[in-house]
Amino acid sequence: MKKNNAKVSVAVIRRLPRYYRHLSELMQQGTVRISSSALGRSMGLTASQIRQDLFCFGGFGQQGYGYNVEKLRDEIGDILGINRGHTAVVLGVGNLGHALIQNFKFGNNGFNLEAAFDIDDDVIGTNVGNIPVYGIDELDEYLRLHRVDIGVLTVPRSVANTMAEQLVRGGVKGIWNFTNLELKLEGAQDVVVENVHFADSLLTLSYMISGRDHNGEEEE
Amino acid sequence: MKKNNAKVSVAVIRRLPRYYRHLSELMQQGTVRISSSALGRSMGLTASQIRQDLFCFGGFGQQGYGYNVEKLRDEIGDILGINRGHTAVVLGVGNLGHALIQNFKFGNNGFNLEAAFDIDDDVIGTNVGNIPVYGIDELDEYLRLHRVDIGVLTVPRSVANTMAEQLVRGGVKGIWNFTNLELKLEGAQDVVVENVHFADSLLTLSYMISGRDHNGEEEE
Repeated sequence: MKKNNAKVSVAVIRRLPRYYRHLSELMQQGTVRISSSALGRSMGLTASQIRQDLFCFGGFGQQGYGYNVEKLRDEIGDILGINRGHTAVVLGVGNLGHALIQNFKFGNNGFNLEAAFDIDDDVIGTNVGNIPVYGIDELDEYLRLHRVDIGVLTVPRSVANTMAEQLVRGGVKGIWNFTNLELKLEGAQDVVVENVHFADSLLTLSYMISGRDHNGEEEE
Repeated sequence: MKKNNAKVSVAVIRRLPRYYRHLSELMQQGTVRISSSALGRSMGLTASQIRQDLFCFGGFGQQGYGYNVEKLRDEIGDILGINRGHTAVVLGVGNLGHALIQNFKFGNNGFNLEAAFDIDDDVIGTNVGNIPVYGIDELDEYLRLHRVDIGVLTVPRSVANTMAEQLVRGGVKGIWNFTNLELKLEGAQDVVVENVHFADSLLTLSYMISGRDHNGEEEE
């Protein structure tokens, strides 16, 4: 299925979820097949950009037919690791933790959210949206007994690095970091940190509405 | 102050908030000046990349001295529009709306959060973290009476586009979109939409921990 991805750039990888999202929407609308130029138009990319991106993962398109929407979506989902039964825990059940646990569809993205941890006695022992909340002092043992692929970090900034280190010691493969702190993890080369920096996003918007000149091309 | 930014690429712009964040942390740590190579090391960029980025905005560095941390931070903040007195309102005071209103530091990013809107009678008329919550039917009038630069969209997906259109008609310059929906706004070329796609971020992490090969270079 994947043929040419020995060296796939992060830029291409970051576009794959967008493809997945667009194709899911097309599928829901009943679209069966789509040309690279039509897909490009709907995503603000050129047809050649799309062909190039998808070629990295082995093609999928057929000359004169275009792409089979469902097949392409499923293949991209597979590349993204959606069918690997990934597991997640949330650290920090404050406002943002609540929002993610109750509103974000982990399952749609191939993650089974299995537990949450906090220090607040008022939430420990309760369920938030069917997810059990444990005390943070139970985390080590939980990580010993369960395979946890990622930890979602929504704790206060001041304890973010300590909690991240605990996750790393417990064997997670990745950390989804919402704390706006650049984590410094010693001896954790294999652990991937994915940051959601709200502030960076808002400051980009701030720049854009401030009427500065830019060339308008999304290059990410 | 800015000299060479007639055509600044979005890739450079998206790095500016990271510079701003790093420099703010350096300032807090008491660092007065820094060389481009040291700044690069701490940010995972090369010195030449840093010199190139900052040159787009008119330089700032001095041969043999490096950068004055506070001055560079302030200039970048200025470029990002932090001192323009931007105003914001939040639409949707659910879990995520609460999290943003109560925990996110709009002020640190140059935005004055002035009001929130919802349809739920239980929150209308209350204050959430000092921010008054109005009914969504009061939005049109509010936008007529107040200059609102951006709307923060944390409403359900199903009403996201309608609410965004209402913001556009009310004259906002930007929309900070948390709904995971690609907004389709007719006749709103001047309105900038900045998306925070949680799912795209998680799927990127999913790919990374799935052990696929990638070249490891952040190209955003």
